[in-house]
Amino acid sequence: MRTKVVIVGAGPAGLMLGRLLDLAGIENLILERKSADYVLGRIRAGVLEQGAVDLMDRAQVSERLHEEGLIHDGTVLSFDGDSHRIDFAQLVGRRVTVYGQTEVTRDLMDARQGQTIYEAEDVQLHDFDGKPYVTWRKDGVSHRVDCDYIAGCDGYHGASRASVPQDAIKTFERIYPFGWLGILVDKPPVAHELIYAHHERGFALCSQRSPTRSRYYVQVANSEKVEDWSDDRFWDELRRRLDPATAEAMQTGESLEKSIAPLRSFVAEPLRFGRLFLAGDAAHIVPPTGAKGLNLAMSDVAMLADALIEFYGETSTAGLDFYSAKALSRIWKAERFSWWMTSLLHVFPDSGDFGRRIQRAEFDYLTGSVAAQQSLAENYTGLPQ
Amino acid sequence: MRTKVVIVGAGPAGLMLGRLLDLAGIENLILERKSADYVLGRIRAGVLEQGAVDLMDRAQVSERLHEEGLIHDGTVLSFDGDSHRIDFAQLVGRRVTVYGQTEVTRDLMDARQGQTIYEAEDVQLHDFDGKPYVTWRKDGVSHRVDCDYIAGCDGYHGASRASVPQDAIKTFERIYPFGWLGILVDKPPVAHELIYAHHERGFALCSQRSPTRSRYYVQVANSEKVEDWSDDRFWDELRRRLDPATAEAMQTGESLEKSIAPLRSFVAEPLRFGRLFLAGDAAHIVPPTGAKGLNLAMSDVAMLADALIEFYGETSTAGLDFYSAKALSRIWKAERFSWWMTSLLHVFPDSGDFGRRIQRAEFDYLTGSVAAQQSLAENYTGLPQ
Repeated sequence: MRTKVVIVGAGPAGLMLGRLLDLAGIENLILERKSADYVLGRIRAGVLEQGAVDLMDRAQVSERLHEEGLIHDGTVLSFDGDSHRIDFAQLVGRRVTVYGQTEVTRDLMDARQGQTIYEAEDVQLHDFDGKPYVTWRKDGVSHRVDCDYIAGCDGYHGASRASVPQDAIKTFERIYPFGWLGILVDKPPVAHELIYAHHERGFALCSQRSPTRSRYYVQVANSEKVEDWSDDRFWDELRRRLDPATAEAMQTGESLEKSIAPLRSFVAEPLRFGRLFLAGDAAHIVPPTGAKGLNLAMSDVAMLADALIEFYGETSTAGLDFYSAKALSRIWKAERFSWWMTSLLHVFPDSGDFGRRIQRAEFDYLTGSVAAQQSLAENYTGLPQ
Repeated sequence: MRTKVVIVGAGPAGLMLGRLLDLAGIENLILERKSADYVLGRIRAGVLEQGAVDLMDRAQVSERLHEEGLIHDGTVLSFDGDSHRIDFAQLVGRRVTVYGQTEVTRDLMDARQGQTIYEAEDVQLHDFDGKPYVTWRKDGVSHRVDCDYIAGCDGYHGASRASVPQDAIKTFERIYPFGWLGILVDKPPVAHELIYAHHERGFALCSQRSPTRSRYYVQVANSEKVEDWSDDRFWDELRRRLDPATAEAMQTGESLEKSIAPLRSFVAEPLRFGRLFLAGDAAHIVPPTGAKGLNLAMSDVAMLADALIEFYGETSTAGLDFYSAKALSRIWKAERFSWWMTSLLHVFPDSGDFGRRIQRAEFDYLTGSVAAQQSLAENYTGLPQ
């Protein structure tokens, strides 16, 4: 079996890359360890930068996105009850679109032309410094595909990055001393836009997936266990961290999903190892504050698709040679922004009195400075590639 | 002996407050622990915000400042050899003026009309919750002055803040794990503007006091001793941290002064205790990165002078009542900026690989974003009162 590009991972990054290659007539195969239903069941981010929306357009999978996606012109930041709206549209002339990652995945799955093999066990990447091939097992049978290139889109825990010899890769990491306890509920969102709230008890976020489905989060210590959090306890804690009017207006209900996600910053360098390229969560993780994870994955695969299209069209490796440096430049800026927004809005057990007052001073400066708000807005809505 | 306002400390803050009160016809007495020559011999900051220049105008002591001060339209930031100029004038329409703190002090000293008592030993502040008075000894004789108000302008180690009961004051502090080794030399500055340089060996700053007098700094560990740093060792270390062209062009020479200053962030709250007001370094310290110390002291005493003038003119305590909150709002923003600029440009022994890359990402983002540069420029040239 032979193909041009093997894509490891059928999350939104892998599916988008496959879609862009399909549209360019470049044969590709996607291998996914899990089932399609499992992939669709993962609850993830839901805020798309304009660049990600543009990429959905380019991939011709944006019909439902434009019908159902919620355009947000701004967001609300609050600090110990003082609220301030950041007006993206007015500040930088750009917007974001709320559309769940699950929906992005579904649209790409529905449009998929090339072959996707789900439930591919024991995926192994071979000889990507020479003549690359990938092996896997399915239903007890071993398979092998030879290819020109491998795209590792299989996330932080995937086989791709793990295949790289340790002395060829450098990793950068920060673990935050807290996680996000999130709840999904079939109730209308409490506000038209997202509310990011710093409170002395910890961060809270009022997010949403649709006009009838809300997503709420509270910062919890890493030692917390989800089974200790009844729905009632969650709603009580969330209400305490919001201003009274918002807490009062919020419609609560039974959780459809409830989980704790740890917060981590992570970058692997470089993104290219011979004929293997890493993209998305396989190469980098951001804490969810600022909603950069999915957007970064989309910009990675847009760059990688362009580089592969250039290679197969013009037989030039320039784009492939430049992919790692170009993508990492954007990745580090998003890492910086995600780290900054996390630092501003969370309670850090070790920050001390001075650190807490610096957070407050940052909020006060931000809400009084057009330049500082423009800086936030240009990052939140997405820096250029 | 009786006066209206006793000002403790004859540094630039105390002298400026005395000058503004003199001009308003409000009797005041300045008490200073050291001699006038000692005060003039202290080498301090040298970059004035427009607000500080305006205050010198208002105090009618700016003739020499306008003759000799060097107007800087921008500054240069460099990171591991990559340089970028921040054009204050273009970004925010404001400038800064290089004029040594020693010169500010001399101009205010020369203009002084009210009485200043130098070498006042054992200054003690009494009963500032009731009928305040201050005692001191001079030439073996004890003195006392009764007053309406006391202004504590006697710096971080002064008697004023130390007089406040510990349970009435809250302090916020961060000690940085390094200091600045500074050298003063009678050679023309290497560049027209200041150069702030991050280098893997540590921060360096090319500053200046006049067209013929330069001030250079290198970051050193807190364990370093000035006697271990010959002039030659200093110049060698500084050159290593600058880009080759700058290092080559720099004129070196025998140091007129050489010292190590630790870096500290410090704020005391509130600034008012009955009839005692703190201003300048007595209430807050910033690390020198960004040159905010003298400028903050000037804005403190401008607010305090206005409040006292309002009190003696209109018998209203509104300004005095609001002084602490108003000054602290500006102080915390300057503390934030000084902390941020320190964090960006220095090498922190414990920041780890991720932290170092975030510094680099911050520099890369800053040099590519007009909004981020405007934010820096509005802070550097001085936020409004």
